[in-house]
Amino acid sequence: MTEAISLAEAFRKAPYKLAGHGPRTVEVLKKALHEVDGELESDIYGKASIIEPFQEKMASFLGKEAAVFFPSGTMAQQIALRIWCDEKENSRVAYHPLCHLEIHEEGGLKELHHIQPILLADKDRVIELEDVTRLNEEIACLLLELPQREIGGQLPSYETLEAISAYCKEEGIRLHLDGARLFEILPYYKKTAAEVCALFDSVYVSFYKGIGGIAGAILAGNKAFTEQSKVWKRRHGGDLISLYPYILSSDYYFDLRVGKMAQYYEEAKELAALYNRCEKVETLPKEPVSNMFHVHFYKSKDIVEPILIDIYQETGVGLTGYIKEVNDEECSYEISIGDLYETVPKAELEDAFKLLGEKLKAV
Amino acid sequence: MTEAISLAEAFRKAPYKLAGHGPRTVEVLKKALHEVDGELESDIYGKASIIEPFQEKMASFLGKEAAVFFPSGTMAQQIALRIWCDEKENSRVAYHPLCHLEIHEEGGLKELHHIQPILLADKDRVIELEDVTRLNEEIACLLLELPQREIGGQLPSYETLEAISAYCKEEGIRLHLDGARLFEILPYYKKTAAEVCALFDSVYVSFYKGIGGIAGAILAGNKAFTEQSKVWKRRHGGDLISLYPYILSSDYYFDLRVGKMAQYYEEAKELAALYNRCEKVETLPKEPVSNMFHVHFYKSKDIVEPILIDIYQETGVGLTGYIKEVNDEECSYEISIGDLYETVPKAELEDAFKLLGEKLKAV
Repeated sequence: MTEAISLAEAFRKAPYKLAGHGPRTVEVLKKALHEVDGELESDIYGKASIIEPFQEKMASFLGKEAAVFFPSGTMAQQIALRIWCDEKENSRVAYHPLCHLEIHEEGGLKELHHIQPILLADKDRVIELEDVTRLNEEIACLLLELPQREIGGQLPSYETLEAISAYCKEEGIRLHLDGARLFEILPYYKKTAAEVCALFDSVYVSFYKGIGGIAGAILAGNKAFTEQSKVWKRRHGGDLISLYPYILSSDYYFDLRVGKMAQYYEEAKELAALYNRCEKVETLPKEPVSNMFHVHFYKSKDIVEPILIDIYQETGVGLTGYIKEVNDEECSYEISIGDLYETVPKAELEDAFKLLGEKLKAV
Repeated sequence: MTEAISLAEAFRKAPYKLAGHGPRTVEVLKKALHEVDGELESDIYGKASIIEPFQEKMASFLGKEAAVFFPSGTMAQQIALRIWCDEKENSRVAYHPLCHLEIHEEGGLKELHHIQPILLADKDRVIELEDVTRLNEEIACLLLELPQREIGGQLPSYETLEAISAYCKEEGIRLHLDGARLFEILPYYKKTAAEVCALFDSVYVSFYKGIGGIAGAILAGNKAFTEQSKVWKRRHGGDLISLYPYILSSDYYFDLRVGKMAQYYEEAKELAALYNRCEKVETLPKEPVSNMFHVHFYKSKDIVEPILIDIYQETGVGLTGYIKEVNDEECSYEISIGDLYETVPKAELEDAFKLLGEKLKAV
């Protein structure tokens, strides 16, 4: 009999977990600092040896002229769009209806920068070339998020990306990449970061998704763009006297994990297939194109939650720490594969999904 | 004979230093983390046990209903003024001509918030009651910086503060405190932080001035105000998934140093008196009212710099790591007393100032 325990608690107690790199504890920072010489001098307002070499390293990795470290992607992306809008003297940009700027930033782009977004494409699919060519208003900038996180991390084809990029160049539209999960999609596209970024005028990447750092972002582009971004970073209050706790940890976990993205991607496909073998459950996308996907159950949260808790307790395998109610007959959650997946024994993994299949069949 | 060495280098090499807490190295963070349990869970977007108790502790210390941790004062203060402007539906505020928002933030207040500042008082003195009562435009908010950093850290009398506060209350003007160095002035006013803050509607304090942390700020006020500030913090890109590196270090150094402000203040007065005994040099203020003051030499930077380098090399006492040229006949620097001052032996200190007096007399 299942004892009264929350899903989050049952997940925390499960010895094996299928998603993530492990808990976000202070140990993550301590580990990154462990080998750093205590005598190393702090960055000072964006200058000094702790920040500049990392910015150069990322510029080079992304194939851009220059890069600037930001405390957050929210700040970096609003600023990128603002610079392109100012350049074109046009305050309209276009992005997906489920873009981070549209749904997670309390309208910062509008409230602080008075930029008007045009929402492209339907919510449940990625932006295609036709969405862009059909636009009948001039825009300064188009933002593409790769992968489109809120719909399970879907991607357009690489040919579509190339076509959109060529069209934007022709039309004088700046193309910005929300690359919060850029590293994670490179194995699917079979491209380097620099190859993908060459299609874009400006690029943001994050260090606490697949990389598993603490916080922080890089904004990259040409030198004129990044220099302007530093002025806006100061205006936003992001030009901290010391950003090194984020820089050192970003650098540490970047080196540790950027080479593991192909593994996470393969594991994501394996795990998604296990879900899709069961009835009344489906992953989005069906076959992942990165380390992430969404799991949709065609049963209510009330029904699915106790099933999952049972599985964690019987097999020791935790599938998720939360479920989101979609409606009375559907619920879902997001999976991002990290370092933990490979630590789960295959036998336990099989057991867990055998049990999930049986239990879903019975409801 | 003096070898060719820069002032900064000579200062770095001096075994004794009269200002600051020591170098801003990674060790500052490591020390703060040393006793922290690695299992402690990160804050997540402004929530969880690592941030909320610290916010409550600071709210209580400042005598305010609530407090919010921000990555920077730049962000916190723009937001404070924006909230008060929105409340009054009036986009004018008033502050000192050398206010941080006016001279160090690349015009963020105007560029992001479209707030128009009215500059009160002459540059070289603090804001007095008459400056406020003489205003002939309605303003939403008045910002007072205590102490006024750019003029050596000067303060109005406490009676003036009380009178300005009463006048603002009567006139419906919100009063905001730029308390970047609030802890540092309490010994002079002989008041608690809560007593000073009671005169203000909103308060910002910093953790890397006298407190000597890494970065970070608190914005405090009533609950409706702080709740709004969280929305703006997200808009600015300051609502990071994890702020704990700054929170843990702020908390650690706050506990370590908030009780030492009276000592720093006494030491600042002692050191200023040593300067003022010499010819061609003067401190501003003549008698410090906090741990800080400015040192003005009535000789050019070219003349003063080699004198200082000589002193560091002959006595082992470093006075400053930089000098700012004011004009052809004047130069200056800022002193903030911290933990290092008490480590300087009195004999060496006396020697250094005896030598400074002699050398200045000779030029």
